[in-house]
Amino acid sequence: MPHRKVGSSIHLSGQLPFKDGELLGQGVVGRDVELETAQELARHAALNCLAAAVQAVGDLDRVRIVQMLVFVASTPDFGEQSQVANAASELLIEVLGENGRHARTAIGVAGLPLNTPVEIQVICTAV
Amino acid sequence: MPHRKVGSSIHLSGQLPFKDGELLGQGVVGRDVELETAQELARHAALNCLAAAVQAVGDLDRVRIVQMLVFVASTPDFGEQSQVANAASELLIEVLGENGRHARTAIGVAGLPLNTPVEIQVICTAV
Amino acid sequence: MPHRKVGSSIHLSGQLPFKDGELLGQGVVGRDVELETAQELARHAALNCLAAAVQAVGDLDRVRIVQMLVFVASTPDFGEQSQVANAASELLIEVLGENGRHARTAIGVAGLPLNTPVEIQVICTAV
Repeated sequence: MPHRKVGSSIHLSGQLPFKDGELLGQGVVGRDVELETAQELARHAALNCLAAAVQAVGDLDRVRIVQMLVFVASTPDFGEQSQVANAASELLIEVLGENGRHARTAIGVAGLPLNTPVEIQVICTAV
Repeated sequence: MPHRKVGSSIHLSGQLPFKDGELLGQGVVGRDVELETAQELARHAALNCLAAAVQAVGDLDRVRIVQMLVFVASTPDFGEQSQVANAASELLIEVLGENGRHARTAIGVAGLPLNTPVEIQVICTAV
Repeated sequence: MPHRKVGSSIHLSGQLPFKDGELLGQGVVGRDVELETAQELARHAALNCLAAAVQAVGDLDRVRIVQMLVFVASTPDFGEQSQVANAASELLIEVLGENGRHARTAIGVAGLPLNTPVEIQVICTAV
């Protein structure tokens, strides 16, 4: 299920960097994947969040992002999860302007489904 | 505290696969724990989410699941966190039907409290 | 962005144990960092959540904590994430009384931004 609403909150399912049905990368950041690649994957995951938000809200102009939780599969000593997440945040603000601004948490995790390096979970609302 | 409400959202505390006060498994999936065992543990954690939801809502028939965040203690190369989470999702839909459907995020983490292989956090609401 | 509201929910961005602009510790709990140190860092991260909540709500007396998600950078076999999180929970209850009580999830993660051992994400509301 791509989203579920409660009150004015719309919870989107975690999104991976799929494009045309293909996962754009695999591996652990800091071991197999470079920062720049992880940022590119974060942008794609954010685009998929945006697509899910539009599907939920019905209209891109009415989407407002509330919260973003960015999971980066990374080594214990990577430490640059915020730079990965910045790429996703900037994309949302680029597309949505002030409505794209959000509370955010970025963390490093051991691994992710299908060995994707990045997964993003968003809560949004309609304005 | 097992739950806390805000507006119509009910946030449940993360649930472990306890049964009759006993944790049903320990270890890291992909190292000490098989996929099938992890799925069984995910079902038990989901049952405990359901129990917490009933306690919060007062009546099973009025519980609607909104969002589920599934944490799987797993090795960096495991990659099958979604299959673990599917076991939990299916149980909720089995029990609650359409009201059991939810937005979902599954991730792999380094480790969990008491070395449980699975922990599940749910947001629900009352219908 | 330190917070974002939707309905009566206020989502705060993940907070690190910064004090006067300085991160108070680095490393992985169970490898480089002791439990007691991690608890102290969790208290500082919780204080920063409280500061962000006051900024969002406008008045400490009106802050009510709803949900806390505690991330502990830890080794696969650490298992004491709940004790780390307890230090943060106790601080919130000490300061806010009944309004500080919350649903909670504590997990262990591979690593965190800037190699902080602890990061805390809070949802709160105004009463």
